[in-house]
Amino acid sequence: MRMAELSAESGVPIPTIKYYLREGMLPPGERTSPNQARYQPSHVRRLKLVRALLDVGGLSIAQVREVLAGIDSPSDIHHVLGITQRGLTLTRGQSDERTRDWAASKLERVAEERGWKLKPGNPVVEAAISALGTFASLGRTEVVDRLDRYAELADRMAELDLASVRDLPDRETVVEGAVVGTVLGDALFAALRRLAQEHASAQTFPRES
Amino acid sequence: MRMAELSAESGVPIPTIKYYLREGMLPPGERTSPNQARYQPSHVRRLKLVRALLDVGGLSIAQVREVLAGIDSPSDIHHVLGITQRGLTLTRGQSDERTRDWAASKLERVAEERGWKLKPGNPVVEAAISALGTFASLGRTEVVDRLDRYAELADRMAELDLASVRDLPDRETVVEGAVVGTVLGDALFAALRRLAQEHASAQTFPRES
Repeated sequence: MRMAELSAESGVPIPTIKYYLREGMLPPGERTSPNQARYQPSHVRRLKLVRALLDVGGLSIAQVREVLAGIDSPSDIHHVLGITQRGLTLTRGQSDERTRDWAASKLERVAEERGWKLKPGNPVVEAAISALGTFASLGRTEVVDRLDRYAELADRMAELDLASVRDLPDRETVVEGAVVGTVLGDALFAALRRLAQEHASAQTFPRES
Repeated sequence: MRMAELSAESGVPIPTIKYYLREGMLPPGERTSPNQARYQPSHVRRLKLVRALLDVGGLSIAQVREVLAGIDSPSDIHHVLGITQRGLTLTRGQSDERTRDWAASKLERVAEERGWKLKPGNPVVEAAISALGTFASLGRTEVVDRLDRYAELADRMAELDLASVRDLPDRETVVEGAVVGTVLGDALFAALRRLAQEHASAQTFPRES
Protein backbone atom coordinates (compact mmCIF):
# COMPACT_ATOMS: atom_id res chain seq x y z
CA MET A 1 0.00 0.00 0.00
CA ARG A 2 1.07 3.62 -0.43
CA MET A 3 1.68 6.18 2.32
CA ALA A 4 -1.87 7.57 2.01
CA GLU A 5 -3.40 4.13 2.53
CA LEU A 6 -1.01 3.38 5.38
CA SER A 7 -2.25 6.57 7.02
CA ALA A 8 -5.93 5.71 6.46
CA GLU A 9 -5.45 2.13 7.68
CA SER A 10 -3.55 3.03 10.84
CA GLY A 11 -5.29 6.30 11.67
CA VAL A 12 -1.91 8.05 11.92
CA PRO A 13 -1.55 11.32 9.95
CA ILE A 14 1.03 11.35 7.11
CA PRO A 15 3.35 13.99 8.66
CA THR A 16 3.48 11.88 11.83
CA ILE A 17 4.31 8.74 9.84
CA LYS A 18 7.16 10.67 8.14
CA TYR A 19 8.41 11.74 11.55
CA TYR A 20 8.42 8.12 12.79
CA LEU A 21 10.31 7.06 9.65
CA ARG A 22 12.95 9.76 10.25
CA GLU A 23 13.23 8.75 13.91
CA GLY A 24 13.74 5.10 13.00
CA MET A 25 10.57 3.95 14.75
CA LEU A 26 9.11 2.59 11.53
CA PRO A 27 11.18 0.63 8.96
CA PRO A 28 11.28 2.26 5.50
CA GLY A 29 8.93 0.92 2.84
CA GLU A 30 10.10 -0.70 -0.36
CA ARG A 31 11.04 2.09 -2.77
CA THR A 32 9.10 1.93 -6.07
CA SER A 33 10.22 5.30 -7.51
CA PRO A 34 12.35 8.21 -6.19
CA ASN A 35 9.25 9.70 -4.53
CA GLN A 36 7.19 6.64 -3.68
CA ALA A 37 7.42 3.61 -1.47
CA ARG A 38 5.20 0.60 -0.83
CA TYR A 39 4.21 -0.42 2.71
CA GLN A 40 3.07 -3.77 4.13
CA PRO A 41 0.48 -4.81 6.74
CA SER A 42 3.46 -5.15 9.13
CA HIS A 43 3.84 -1.36 8.88
CA VAL A 44 0.24 -0.87 10.02
CA ARG A 45 0.87 -3.16 12.99
CA ARG A 46 4.08 -1.38 13.91
CA LEU A 47 2.37 2.03 13.73
CA LYS A 48 -0.39 0.89 16.07
CA LEU A 49 2.23 -0.44 18.47
CA VAL A 50 4.16 2.85 18.43
CA ARG A 51 0.97 4.82 19.15
CA ALA A 52 0.01 2.50 21.99
CA LEU A 53 3.43 2.79 23.62
CA LEU A 54 3.41 6.59 23.30
CA ASP A 55 -0.24 7.34 24.12
CA VAL A 56 -1.32 4.71 26.61
CA GLY A 57 2.06 3.56 27.89
CA GLY A 58 3.27 7.14 28.25
CA LEU A 59 6.78 6.21 27.02
CA SER A 60 9.17 8.76 25.56
CA ILE A 61 10.37 8.56 21.95
CA ALA A 62 13.75 7.29 23.21
CA GLN A 63 12.09 4.55 25.27
CA VAL A 64 9.91 3.46 22.35
CA ARG A 65 13.01 3.21 20.16
CA GLU A 66 14.77 1.07 22.78
CA VAL A 67 11.78 -1.23 23.14
CA LEU A 68 11.44 -1.63 19.36
CA ALA A 69 15.16 -2.45 19.08
CA GLY A 70 14.58 -5.23 21.60
CA ILE A 71 11.64 -6.60 19.60
CA ASP A 72 13.66 -6.53 16.36
CA SER A 73 16.85 -8.09 17.77
CA PRO A 74 17.53 -11.75 16.98
CA SER A 75 18.37 -12.95 20.53
CA ASP A 76 16.46 -15.68 22.36
CA ILE A 77 13.06 -14.80 23.77
CA HIS A 78 13.92 -14.71 27.45
CA HIS A 79 16.86 -12.38 26.78
CA VAL A 80 14.76 -9.99 24.70
CA LEU A 81 12.03 -9.91 27.33
CA GLY A 82 14.70 -8.90 29.84
CA ILE A 83 16.00 -6.08 27.62
CA THR A 84 12.61 -4.66 26.75
CA GLN A 85 11.32 -4.81 30.30
CA ARG A 86 14.44 -3.13 31.65
CA GLY A 87 14.30 -0.59 28.83
CA LEU A 88 11.12 0.73 30.40
CA THR A 89 13.08 2.93 32.76
CA LEU A 90 11.50 3.39 36.11
CA THR A 91 11.90 6.74 37.87
CA ARG A 92 14.09 6.89 40.93
CA GLY A 93 14.18 8.71 44.20
CA GLN A 94 17.12 9.33 46.47
CA SER A 95 17.44 8.04 49.97
CA ASP A 96 20.46 7.86 52.28
CA GLU A 97 22.67 4.78 52.32
CA ARG A 98 21.24 3.33 55.53
CA THR A 99 17.66 3.52 54.25
CA ARG A 100 18.77 2.01 50.94
CA ASP A 101 20.50 -0.94 52.66
CA TRP A 102 17.46 -1.51 54.84
CA ALA A 103 15.15 -1.47 51.80
CA ALA A 104 17.49 -3.79 49.89
CA SER A 105 17.46 -6.34 52.74
CA LYS A 106 13.64 -6.24 52.85
CA LEU A 107 13.48 -6.91 49.13
CA GLU A 108 16.10 -9.69 49.31
CA ARG A 109 14.15 -11.52 51.99
CA VAL A 110 10.94 -11.41 49.96
CA ALA A 111 12.74 -12.38 46.72
CA GLU A 112 14.18 -15.43 48.47
CA GLU A 113 10.72 -16.45 49.66
CA ARG A 114 9.37 -16.21 46.12
CA GLY A 115 12.37 -17.68 44.30
CA TRP A 116 13.09 -14.46 42.38
CA LYS A 117 16.69 -13.87 41.25
CA LEU A 118 17.86 -10.31 41.99
CA LYS A 119 20.68 -9.74 39.50
CA PRO A 120 23.08 -6.96 40.57
CA GLY A 121 22.82 -3.91 38.33
CA ASN A 122 19.27 -4.76 37.19
CA PRO A 123 17.50 -1.37 37.06
CA VAL A 124 14.23 -3.02 38.08
CA VAL A 125 15.82 -4.11 41.36
CA GLU A 126 17.10 -0.57 41.89
CA ALA A 127 13.63 0.84 41.14
CA ALA A 128 12.03 -1.46 43.73
CA ILE A 129 14.64 -0.58 46.37
CA SER A 130 14.21 3.10 45.59
CA ALA A 131 10.41 2.96 45.96
CA LEU A 132 10.72 1.03 49.24
CA GLY A 133 13.33 3.49 50.56
CA THR A 134 11.10 6.44 49.69
CA PHE A 135 8.12 4.88 51.50
CA ALA A 136 10.36 4.46 54.56
CA SER A 137 11.79 7.99 54.43
CA LEU A 138 8.21 9.34 54.37
CA GLY A 139 7.39 7.25 57.43
CA ARG A 140 5.09 4.93 55.44
CA THR A 141 6.52 1.65 56.75
CA GLU A 142 3.04 0.02 56.80
CA VAL A 143 3.45 -0.59 53.08
CA VAL A 144 6.94 -2.05 53.46
CA ASP A 145 5.61 -4.33 56.21
CA ARG A 146 3.17 -5.80 53.69
CA LEU A 147 5.79 -6.30 50.98
CA ASP A 148 5.47 -10.10 51.11
CA ARG A 149 1.76 -9.85 50.30
CA TYR A 150 2.31 -7.39 47.43
CA ALA A 151 5.00 -9.74 46.08
CA GLU A 152 2.58 -12.66 46.22
CA LEU A 153 0.06 -10.64 44.16
CA ALA A 154 2.88 -9.76 41.72
CA ASP A 155 3.59 -13.47 41.24
CA ARG A 156 -0.07 -14.20 40.57
CA MET A 157 -0.23 -11.35 38.09
CA ALA A 158 2.97 -12.44 36.30
CA GLU A 159 1.40 -15.88 35.85
CA LEU A 160 -1.61 -14.24 34.18
CA ASP A 161 0.71 -12.03 32.09
CA LEU A 162 2.76 -14.99 30.87
CA ALA A 163 -0.32 -17.13 30.25
CA SER A 164 -1.48 -14.38 27.86
CA VAL A 165 1.67 -14.52 25.72
CA ARG A 166 2.63 -18.19 26.04
CA ASP A 167 0.27 -19.41 23.34
CA LEU A 168 0.98 -16.76 20.72
CA PRO A 169 2.01 -18.26 17.38
CA ASP A 170 5.56 -17.03 16.74
CA ARG A 171 8.57 -15.44 18.37
CA GLU A 172 7.93 -11.89 17.11
CA THR A 173 4.34 -11.98 18.30
CA VAL A 174 5.37 -13.33 21.71
CA VAL A 175 7.94 -10.58 22.20
CA GLU A 176 5.58 -7.86 20.97
CA GLY A 177 2.81 -9.29 23.15
CA ALA A 178 5.03 -9.21 26.21
CA VAL A 179 6.07 -5.61 25.60
CA VAL A 180 2.52 -4.47 24.97
CA GLY A 181 1.39 -6.44 28.01
CA THR A 182 3.98 -4.81 30.22
CA VAL A 183 3.43 -1.23 29.12
CA LEU A 184 -0.34 -1.24 28.61
CA GLY A 185 -0.72 -3.74 31.44
CA ASP A 186 0.74 -1.26 33.93
CA ALA A 187 -1.69 1.43 32.69
CA LEU A 188 -4.66 -0.94 32.79
CA PHE A 189 -3.84 -2.30 36.21
CA ALA A 190 -3.23 1.17 37.68
CA ALA A 191 -6.77 2.09 36.57
CA LEU A 192 -8.29 -1.14 37.96
CA ARG A 193 -6.43 -0.63 41.24
CA ARG A 194 -7.90 2.89 41.59
CA LEU A 195 -11.44 1.65 40.86
CA ALA A 196 -10.98 -1.05 43.50
CA GLN A 197 -9.54 1.54 45.91
CA GLU A 198 -12.55 3.83 45.43
CA HIS A 199 -14.79 0.89 46.24
CA ALA A 200 -12.77 -0.09 49.32
CA SER A 201 -12.48 3.54 50.44
CA ALA A 202 -16.24 4.12 50.24
CA GLN A 203 -16.66 1.19 52.60
CA THR A 204 -13.83 2.13 54.95
CA PHE A 205 -14.57 5.87 55.16
CA PRO A 206 -18.34 6.37 54.72
CA ARG A 207 -19.32 9.93 53.76
CA GLU A 208 -19.47 12.20 56.78
CA SER A 209 -22.54 14.15 55.62
CA MET B 1 14.05 26.58 61.69
CA ARG B 2 15.57 28.81 59.01
CA MET B 3 15.80 28.10 55.30
CA ALA B 4 19.36 26.70 55.62
CA GLU B 5 18.24 24.19 58.27
CA LEU B 6 15.16 23.28 56.28
CA SER B 7 17.47 22.50 53.37
CA ALA B 8 19.84 20.42 55.52
CA GLU B 9 16.97 18.55 57.19
CA SER B 10 15.11 17.71 53.96
CA GLY B 11 18.11 17.24 51.67
CA VAL B 12 16.58 19.68 49.16
CA PRO B 13 18.88 22.51 47.93
CA ILE B 14 17.89 26.09 48.84
CA PRO B 15 17.27 27.27 45.22
CA THR B 16 14.91 24.31 44.75
CA ILE B 17 13.05 25.13 47.97
CA LYS B 18 12.63 28.71 46.73
CA TYR B 19 11.27 27.39 43.44
CA TYR B 20 8.71 25.20 45.26
CA LEU B 21 7.67 28.23 47.35
CA ARG B 22 7.15 30.32 44.20
CA GLU B 23 5.21 27.47 42.56
CA GLY B 24 2.93 27.14 45.60
CA MET B 25 4.02 23.57 46.35
CA LEU B 26 5.30 24.56 49.80
CA PRO B 27 3.38 26.94 52.09
CA PRO B 28 5.37 30.09 53.05
CA GLY B 29 7.15 30.14 56.40
CA GLU B 30 6.28 32.57 59.19
CA ARG B 31 8.02 35.85 58.37
CA THR B 32 10.37 37.05 61.16
CA SER B 33 11.99 39.95 59.25
CA PRO B 34 11.74 41.28 55.68
CA ASN B 35 14.41 38.78 54.57
CA GLN B 36 13.84 35.87 56.90
CA ALA B 37 11.17 33.29 57.63
CA ARG B 38 10.83 30.47 60.10
CA TYR B 39 9.85 26.95 58.97
CA GLN B 40 8.24 24.06 60.85
CA PRO B 41 8.72 20.28 60.82
CA SER B 42 5.58 20.18 58.65
CA HIS B 43 7.65 21.95 55.95
CA VAL B 44 10.24 19.16 56.04
CA ARG B 45 7.50 16.57 55.66
CA ARG B 46 5.89 18.43 52.76
CA LEU B 47 9.26 18.78 50.99
CA LYS B 48 9.88 15.03 51.25
CA LEU B 49 6.41 14.39 49.88
CA VAL B 50 6.97 16.74 46.92
CA ARG B 51 10.28 15.02 46.11
CA ALA B 52 8.72 11.57 46.31
CA LEU B 53 5.86 12.53 43.99
CA LEU B 54 8.24 14.11 41.47
CA ASP B 55 11.14 11.62 41.60
CA VAL B 56 9.58 8.25 42.29
CA GLY B 57 6.00 8.91 41.25
CA GLY B 58 7.14 10.64 38.06
CA LEU B 59 4.38 13.28 38.37
CA SER B 60 4.61 16.67 36.67
CA ILE B 61 4.73 19.92 38.67
CA ALA B 62 1.09 20.56 37.70
CA GLN B 63 0.01 17.12 38.93
CA VAL B 64 1.87 17.54 42.21
CA ARG B 65 0.12 20.87 42.76
CA GLU B 66 -3.28 19.27 42.10
CA VAL B 67 -2.57 16.40 44.49
CA LEU B 68 -1.38 18.80 47.23
CA ALA B 69 -4.52 20.91 46.79
CA GLY B 70 -6.53 17.74 47.43
CA ILE B 71 -4.57 16.96 50.60
CA ASP B 72 -5.01 20.53 51.89
CA SER B 73 -8.73 20.84 51.11
CA PRO B 74 -11.17 20.49 54.01
CA SER B 75 -13.60 17.99 52.42
CA ASP B 76 -14.37 14.58 53.87
CA ILE B 77 -11.77 11.86 53.47
CA HIS B 78 -13.52 9.75 50.84
CA HIS B 79 -14.11 12.80 48.65
CA VAL B 80 -10.47 13.91 48.89
CA LEU B 81 -9.23 10.43 48.07
CA GLY B 82 -11.37 10.58 44.95
CA ILE B 83 -9.98 13.96 43.89
CA THR B 84 -6.36 13.08 44.48
CA GLN B 85 -6.60 9.72 42.78
CA ARG B 86 -8.32 11.21 39.76
CA GLY B 87 -5.80 14.06 39.75
CA LEU B 88 -3.17 11.49 38.85
CA THR B 89 -4.05 11.73 35.19
CA LEU B 90 -3.69 8.53 33.28
CA THR B 91 -2.54 8.69 29.69
CA ARG B 92 -5.04 7.85 26.98
CA GLY B 93 -5.07 6.24 23.59
CA GLN B 94 -7.60 6.59 20.86
CA SER B 95 -9.74 3.82 19.50
CA ASP B 96 -12.77 3.91 17.25
CA GLU B 97 -16.27 4.09 18.73
CA ARG B 98 -17.08 0.41 18.23
CA THR B 99 -13.92 -0.73 20.00
CA ARG B 100 -14.60 1.75 22.78
CA ASP B 101 -18.17 0.49 23.31
CA TRP B 102 -16.95 -3.10 23.30
CA ALA B 103 -14.25 -2.27 25.90
CA ALA B 104 -16.78 -0.35 28.02
CA SER B 105 -19.17 -3.31 28.09
CA LYS B 106 -16.32 -5.66 29.15
CA LEU B 107 -15.42 -3.30 31.99
CA GLU B 108 -19.06 -2.89 33.05
CA ARG B 109 -19.57 -6.62 33.32
CA VAL B 110 -16.49 -7.03 35.51
CA ALA B 111 -17.37 -3.99 37.64
CA GLU B 112 -20.80 -5.48 38.30
CA GLU B 113 -19.21 -8.76 39.41
CA ARG B 114 -16.97 -6.93 41.85
CA GLY B 115 -19.48 -4.36 43.09
CA TRP B 116 -17.51 -1.41 41.73
CA LYS B 117 -19.45 1.76 40.87
CA LEU B 118 -18.44 3.21 37.48
CA LYS B 119 -19.40 6.87 37.72
CA PRO B 120 -19.86 8.53 34.31
CA GLY B 121 -17.12 11.08 33.59
CA ASN B 122 -14.68 9.48 36.03
CA PRO B 123 -11.31 9.74 34.23
CA VAL B 124 -10.18 6.47 35.82
CA VAL B 125 -13.04 4.67 34.07
CA GLU B 126 -12.04 6.32 30.79
CA ALA B 127 -8.41 5.29 31.34
CA ALA B 128 -9.41 1.66 31.89
CA ILE B 129 -11.65 1.63 28.80
CA SER B 130 -8.89 3.26 26.76
CA ALA B 131 -6.28 0.68 27.84
CA LEU B 132 -8.70 -2.19 27.09
CA GLY B 133 -9.56 -0.70 23.69
CA THR B 134 -5.89 -0.35 22.83
CA PHE B 135 -5.20 -3.98 23.75
CA ALA B 136 -8.05 -5.00 21.46
CA SER B 137 -6.97 -2.78 18.55
CA LEU B 138 -3.50 -4.40 18.75
CA GLY B 139 -5.13 -7.83 18.61
CA ARG B 140 -4.17 -8.62 22.23
CA THR B 141 -7.58 -9.88 23.34
CA GLU B 142 -6.01 -12.58 25.55
CA VAL B 143 -5.49 -9.86 28.17
CA VAL B 144 -9.07 -8.58 27.89
CA ASP B 145 -10.31 -12.16 28.24
CA ARG B 146 -8.59 -12.35 31.61
CA LEU B 147 -9.98 -9.01 32.84
CA ASP B 148 -12.02 -10.64 35.60
CA ARG B 149 -8.89 -12.19 37.08
CA TYR B 150 -6.93 -8.93 36.91
CA ALA B 151 -9.88 -7.20 38.60
CA GLU B 152 -9.87 -9.78 41.37
CA LEU B 153 -6.16 -9.08 41.98
CA ALA B 154 -6.94 -5.33 41.97
CA ASP B 155 -9.52 -5.89 44.71
CA ARG B 156 -7.06 -7.85 46.81
CA MET B 157 -4.46 -5.13 46.35
CA ALA B 158 -6.90 -2.33 47.23
CA GLU B 159 -7.64 -4.18 50.48
CA LEU B 160 -3.93 -4.19 51.27
CA ASP B 161 -3.66 -0.51 50.26
CA LEU B 162 -6.56 0.52 52.48
CA ALA B 163 -5.35 -1.61 55.38
CA SER B 164 -2.12 0.41 55.24
CA VAL B 165 -3.85 3.76 55.69
CA ARG B 166 -6.86 2.78 57.81
CA ASP B 167 -4.97 2.91 61.11
CA LEU B 168 -3.09 6.17 60.57
CA PRO B 169 -3.70 8.65 63.42
CA ASP B 170 -5.40 11.67 61.81
CA ARG B 171 -7.18 12.84 58.67
CA GLU B 172 -4.20 14.65 57.14
CA THR B 173 -1.97 11.62 57.59
CA VAL B 174 -4.61 9.30 56.13
CA VAL B 175 -5.01 11.46 53.04
CA GLU B 176 -1.26 11.90 52.60
CA GLY B 177 -0.76 8.18 53.16
CA ALA B 178 -3.31 7.33 50.50
CA VAL B 179 -1.74 9.68 47.96
CA VAL B 180 1.77 8.41 48.65
CA GLY B 181 0.47 4.86 48.56
CA THR B 182 -1.17 5.38 45.19
CA VAL B 183 1.72 7.15 43.48
CA LEU B 184 4.65 5.25 44.98
CA GLY B 185 2.56 2.11 45.15
CA ASP B 186 2.18 2.08 41.36
CA ALA B 187 5.96 2.48 40.96
CA LEU B 188 6.70 -0.22 43.55
CA PHE B 189 4.21 -2.68 42.14
CA ALA B 190 5.36 -2.12 38.54
CA ALA B 191 8.87 -3.11 39.69
CA LEU B 192 7.63 -6.18 41.62
CA ARG B 193 5.54 -7.24 38.63
CA ARG B 194 8.61 -7.09 36.37
CA LEU B 195 10.70 -9.14 38.80
CA ALA B 196 7.94 -11.73 38.97
CA GLN B 197 7.64 -11.68 35.16
CA GLU B 198 11.39 -12.31 34.77
CA HIS B 199 11.04 -15.29 37.08
CA ALA B 200 7.99 -16.65 35.24
CA SER B 201 9.58 -15.97 31.84
CA ALA B 202 12.77 -17.89 32.74
CA GLN B 203 10.58 -20.89 33.52
CA THR B 204 8.30 -20.53 30.49
CA PHE B 205 11.01 -19.80 27.90
CA PRO B 206 14.21 -21.59 28.98
CA ARG B 207 17.36 -20.26 27.29
CA GLU B 208 17.79 -21.72 23.83
CA SER B 209 21.59 -22.14 24.10
